[in-house]
Amino acid sequence: MMKRQPYIGKWITVLYRTGRSYFDYRTEKYGISSSHMFFLLCLYRKQGLSQNAISKELNLDKGTTARISATLEILGYVTRQQDVKDKRAYEVFLTEKGKKLEPQIRVILKEWAHIATKGFTAEEEKVAYQLLKRMAGKVIAAKEGNWGTVDKLYQEG
Amino acid sequence: MMKRQPYIGKWITVLYRTGRSYFDYRTEKYGISSSHMFFLLCLYRKQGLSQNAISKELNLDKGTTARISATLEILGYVTRQQDVKDKRAYEVFLTEKGKKLEPQIRVILKEWAHIATKGFTAEEEKVAYQLLKRMAGKVIAAKEGNWGTVDKLYQEG
Repeated sequence: MMKRQPYIGKWITVLYRTGRSYFDYRTEKYGISSSHMFFLLCLYRKQGLSQNAISKELNLDKGTTARISATLEILGYVTRQQDVKDKRAYEVFLTEKGKKLEPQIRVILKEWAHIATKGFTAEEEKVAYQLLKRMAGKVIAAKEGNWGTVDKLYQEG
Repeated sequence: MMKRQPYIGKWITVLYRTGRSYFDYRTEKYGISSSHMFFLLCLYRKQGLSQNAISKELNLDKGTTARISATLEILGYVTRQQDVKDKRAYEVFLTEKGKKLEPQIRVILKEWAHIATKGFTAEEEKVAYQLLKRMAGKVIAAKEGNWGTVDKLYQEG
């Protein structure tokens, strides 16, 4: 019998999935979903991105990214410019309507942090942010090293 | 200009996605992916579940759940029993081969926690678990209340 330990994966999954659900709920009135919100957030960081770059950043396949992008264009949040060299490639730019959505989206993200840390003291909130950020850093480093530096905790049968 | 705050959503997303990637990497040699691993984890908690129950627990659509279930049956990790009343409904049971995979899967989950908290002191690790668990509890409660108790932090434009 193995020693029981809490599994952080479970809580991370709950936080991730419930977050998506909240973002879907809060972005609905803008005609979009959480996926479109994350797409727009890429453009708020850097105006004028290729769909491929966004695809990579959001870890989405190209077809899904293209669909999200097309919907945002139809809704008037972005414009797209076809690459002269590669007809399938698009550069995406925010419209004025898209830019105006940024404060609302920032509010939604803050609300989410507020929900997740409700009742926390200022110190606990700070610690939670720091630990999450450190954990994210650890897993990114491990992934970038192709998981190679992982010390196996147990021998497998 | 709004006051800048760290957004926990970003770290949660990184932890979730990188976790999936690690679980895919570690379960590959059993012929499965992280999705199959999470499916099996449901059965380790309770033997003999309907696909609908698993679908609900994992927040997956029925088609996806059915595909995962069928693959696990082909690989010999589960057997499926068609419902006598509803031909499209299946009860899923672990085989001996499926049961034997449990310790390996538990190891993978522990390794993941180990990667994410590498270099943490025992106290920091404990605090990280507790804060994550509390945050997960907060968001589940908010969702169950249909987000109704959320105090909006800012007025929207």
